[in-house]
Amino acid sequence: MSDRPPLPRDEFVSWLRREGESRYHDQHRVHVLMHQGKLSKLQLQQWVLNRFYYQTRIPIKDALILAKSEDPVFRRAWIRRIHDHDGSAPGEGGLELWLRLAEGVGLKRAEVEGLGSVLPGVKFACDAYVTLVRERSLLEAVASSLTEFFAPDLMSRRIQAWQDHYPWVDAEMLAYFRARVPRARVDSEEAIAFVVGHADTFELQRRCVAALIRKTEILWHLLDCVQAAYVPSTEEAP
Amino acid sequence: MSDRPPLPRDEFVSWLRREGESRYHDQHRVHVLMHQGKLSKLQLQQWVLNRFYYQTRIPIKDALILAKSEDPVFRRAWIRRIHDHDGSAPGEGGLELWLRLAEGVGLKRAEVEGLGSVLPGVKFACDAYVTLVRERSLLEAVASSLTEFFAPDLMSRRIQAWQDHYPWVDAEMLAYFRARVPRARVDSEEAIAFVVGHADTFELQRRCVAALIRKTEILWHLLDCVQAAYVPSTEEAP
Repeated sequence: MSDRPPLPRDEFVSWLRREGESRYHDQHRVHVLMHQGKLSKLQLQQWVLNRFYYQTRIPIKDALILAKSEDPVFRRAWIRRIHDHDGSAPGEGGLELWLRLAEGVGLKRAEVEGLGSVLPGVKFACDAYVTLVRERSLLEAVASSLTEFFAPDLMSRRIQAWQDHYPWVDAEMLAYFRARVPRARVDSEEAIAFVVGHADTFELQRRCVAALIRKTEILWHLLDCVQAAYVPSTEEAP
Repeated sequence: MSDRPPLPRDEFVSWLRREGESRYHDQHRVHVLMHQGKLSKLQLQQWVLNRFYYQTRIPIKDALILAKSEDPVFRRAWIRRIHDHDGSAPGEGGLELWLRLAEGVGLKRAEVEGLGSVLPGVKFACDAYVTLVRERSLLEAVASSLTEFFAPDLMSRRIQAWQDHYPWVDAEMLAYFRARVPRARVDSEEAIAFVVGHADTFELQRRCVAALIRKTEILWHLLDCVQAAYVPSTEEAP
């Protein structure tokens, strides 16, 4: 335990942004190659298929976050995230949009939905996210969601890159990415307000940063696994 | 583990109903006295105050149930229960209705909401419910909700009894009980369909019955604690 006083709000937010941004998976080789148009159809498919496992963990971790809160006001706001992914009716919601994306890159919906071809390391990393949320405090669980800070920019670049480089993917199939741009912005603003409001000691601020760093490691490892299995190393690695 | 084949659907449902009904807390002395109009204002207040702690656990245990499900279809149905208690806006939902009931029996809202006067044994029992849901399977967690089978009848009798015996409680304050009659019916029908559909071995059926019995013990113990603290024993106990 440190006797250090808490950082002022702005410095704490800068610390979170700095640690998150420098480790965010937009810089991972798989994303760099994707955005340069250098992934093959198979590689794109395998990214979509493996990332779907991450997508399926989102409503589960958000339900765990709900269960950690004693505050109906917080829960009423956070529950929207579950609806965003599960939808309000069959055929709606982010999971459904991701499955359409999977069909758009030429995968069979049932194979993706069945999760049977997901790489073991991807499961380990995504399950580690659920475990983090289950075992740490509400504050740390919310802080781990702050990768959403950086998502709108990544999504916007992704939509452009896919339209430029993978024209065989119907632009309609990118609906998931388009939907995430404004939602990730709202979600991260809500989350940062909660984190700044509740991390009132330096120790709590440190734990929030640690949770965010762990989350960036999870996202990064997912791409490491996809790269190891499907993207051969090359001497001209970007 | 038993080699016994699963019971046919009807027999399994009868088993659940029998075990649940014979242990349901409508027969507890506190409820009997309440419905006979024999509770004092203080006793009624203390029941409302202590039961509020149970009410606050409901959205938490329902979020844990959500987090256990891999099925967006199941989650889309179950999430409604969280909205039922938390509401969609400030001033809505079952928790809010219960706080109005608390005001209707003459309690201070802040005292009830603060949970500071809840009896320790009531907390233990309600927390045991959350623990059961957290630690057991999705199937057992859903089975533990089947006390809802018996709720509509209890709620209907309660509304009548309060109107007859406690006319000093504004009938509008009974809105929570009125709202629960149709909802508990829908909820229990959904839950029984899930339980019957998934308990496909005798061992699973046995575990569902055990979870329901534990739940009845939790509800019963809550009233035991209220009785021990606020309802003196009498030789003419009903």
